[in-house]
Amino acid sequence: MSVKFAVLGHGVVGSGVVELFYKNKNSIEKRAGTEMDIKYILDLRDFPDSPYKDKFTKDFNDIINDDEVSCVAECMGGVEPAFTFVKACLEHGKSVATSNKELVAEKGDILLKAAKEHNCNFFFEASVGGAIPIIRPLHRCLAANDITKVAGILNGTTNFILTKMYNDNMPFEEALALAQKLGYAEKDPTADIEGHDACRKICIISSLVFGKHVYPKSVYTKGISKVQLSDVAAADVLGYAIKLVATVTRQPDGKILPAVMPMLVSHENIMAGVNDVFNAVLVYGDGIDQAMFYGRGAGKLPTASAVMGDVIEAVKHKVTVFSQSWDSADNDLFVDDIDNFTSRWYFRVPAGSDTPEGSYEHEDGISFITEDKLTFTQAAEYSAKINALALIPVLD
Amino acid sequence: MSVKFAVLGHGVVGSGVVELFYKNKNSIEKRAGTEMDIKYILDLRDFPDSPYKDKFTKDFNDIINDDEVSCVAECMGGVEPAFTFVKACLEHGKSVATSNKELVAEKGDILLKAAKEHNCNFFFEASVGGAIPIIRPLHRCLAANDITKVAGILNGTTNFILTKMYNDNMPFEEALALAQKLGYAEKDPTADIEGHDACRKICIISSLVFGKHVYPKSVYTKGISKVQLSDVAAADVLGYAIKLVATVTRQPDGKILPAVMPMLVSHENIMAGVNDVFNAVLVYGDGIDQAMFYGRGAGKLPTASAVMGDVIEAVKHKVTVFSQSWDSADNDLFVDDIDNFTSRWYFRVPAGSDTPEGSYEHEDGISFITEDKLTFTQAAEYSAKINALALIPVLD
Repeated sequence: MSVKFAVLGHGVVGSGVVELFYKNKNSIEKRAGTEMDIKYILDLRDFPDSPYKDKFTKDFNDIINDDEVSCVAECMGGVEPAFTFVKACLEHGKSVATSNKELVAEKGDILLKAAKEHNCNFFFEASVGGAIPIIRPLHRCLAANDITKVAGILNGTTNFILTKMYNDNMPFEEALALAQKLGYAEKDPTADIEGHDACRKICIISSLVFGKHVYPKSVYTKGISKVQLSDVAAADVLGYAIKLVATVTRQPDGKILPAVMPMLVSHENIMAGVNDVFNAVLVYGDGIDQAMFYGRGAGKLPTASAVMGDVIEAVKHKVTVFSQSWDSADNDLFVDDIDNFTSRWYFRVPAGSDTPEGSYEHEDGISFITEDKLTFTQAAEYSAKINALALIPVLD
Repeated sequence: MSVKFAVLGHGVVGSGVVELFYKNKNSIEKRAGTEMDIKYILDLRDFPDSPYKDKFTKDFNDIINDDEVSCVAECMGGVEPAFTFVKACLEHGKSVATSNKELVAEKGDILLKAAKEHNCNFFFEASVGGAIPIIRPLHRCLAANDITKVAGILNGTTNFILTKMYNDNMPFEEALALAQKLGYAEKDPTADIEGHDACRKICIISSLVFGKHVYPKSVYTKGISKVQLSDVAAADVLGYAIKLVATVTRQPDGKILPAVMPMLVSHENIMAGVNDVFNAVLVYGDGIDQAMFYGRGAGKLPTASAVMGDVIEAVKHKVTVFSQSWDSADNDLFVDDIDNFTSRWYFRVPAGSDTPEGSYEHEDGISFITEDKLTFTQAAEYSAKINALALIPVLD
């Protein structure tokens, strides 16, 4: 018997899923243990030249009402209509594999509940870190660990821009324009450069690791648009690279503290070497100490590869995989306030200021890193007191 | 109902499994979906002060004849008696999770067959890369990819020594003595420094990725004992770090070519930043482009964490997971000869030699990297012709 699945959306990722499936059909079927085929591709646009033009439909009802379709790859992006479509699929017992991080970050708890109730699966490996296997290793291979902290470079666009600033001394605006020219950044780059994309991904990771849904609105998020070339250069001299880091830490009181911010990453840290559009996720646990997962965080085939891997899993698991799930949660009780974020801090102050030993004086001021750890509030107060021109936390 | 398992061997890894299990028992049981306990610990030594002393046995028959034991963690090391014990467990339908790379590299095909025939599982995540989840991501999350090449830093001891040579200009013998002092190297360090340990691990990876058993004797293996400080320093100036790299590549004719050798890794490659006792595995596929998995490749709790993760998997999967398997194979037909290994090469020649532009002259000679790719045989011939003092392939 051949398993039939549908692909929702024929944009970059959706068309990649179709391409990769037919390219590696034999080995995919071997892995899945069954013959497989795509029965429908949903898109409102026409693709008269596609070799699969007979599979296209503009009507979602064709898919939802077809009992032969047991699995759906959702590659549309955005909360709606993806949420309505995915929920309907799950309620009809059709497993869903999605690359849509916005959907998972905003509605994951609801969709996981629907999957459980209808004994099918909602898989989302492709929603974080593109091609990098991170969701499944996190929930399965690390099952024996008490995970205390995760830190990641989760947005390829901002990492490309910061790499250009670092390697080529290219100002932010110019690096952004280049990223747009190369297709790494959208025309409206807000979601990337202001950290919203990374925020959605750390929400998904936090929810999975700590078992309760963390919503994007609960996460302090700061982008890279204010990062200055002089700080990138000064941080380098002090032994650090500036990266947009998404972190989540379990606090001593059991609450968790997720955040997205530019941070100084020590050259000794393997994450400092993650450049260009690559992503990486560093996981800290009591058994493993630390492990990192690295790869292309976006792009047609890398993301399609993760979606397709989930489709294969869905075909193989005909009942709900409970452990890859989390519950709805009141974030006020569970998510700590950013005021309790604690780290060492990088400061840049005007020339002539009184600064500690080991400071680096350059043409845009004097840069130094505090020896002591300060909370977010303490750092802001100290910054005002010393008339700091820049303050950036250090990832420890 | 509570699931009972046994731990074979109470050395570093075995005692780590016991420690980690009782430390995280609650969350492990939640992940496994059932209550669990250790019923036996097999070791010939006495542990009168252990809090689990009632569980110790010196008689393997206690375990094999106890129907209540459904799963076994094998942490003894070496081929025998581990092979006899593990095979007996599988033949009695008891799933096995092992950290024993020698066992998997030499006898994996036989044990996987036994597991299939008795509808249980033989899992070995801990045998490669210690804590790093690599076996499961490789076979599962990358299921949709055509994997063409894998390159890894798979031995922590040699990576520690090479890091000391690079960072501290410490000669090989001194770095080895330090590794022994710190407990990173055995008294007899042959298996590590001559590459045998890395060889076993690339055998396991090759077998899993390409579906046929690759035996250690089929793999060209060269260790790091001949690596000179002057080459480490010269490679750095030329833009490379010297690492002990285990690779496997699919050749144009479909054969595969595994090898273990010191290689030059470009500073642009994320693997060049993998230092100290850390391991990393870089995977190349048509969908993902490249992905890297990084973490502690050895040590008590990291390895125990991987074993425990497999025990949880074994508890959850009561039938054989077929896809994580491979077949016996005639390596003469499947494994290519090292003579067909092709790369650019680093040469060091005596002062006064005629060398290409971009060469680096230093007190121990002149170092350069060929622009053209040469086979293993061509490189050796050229080396003899120019009286080379060192030749090392470049990882491309």
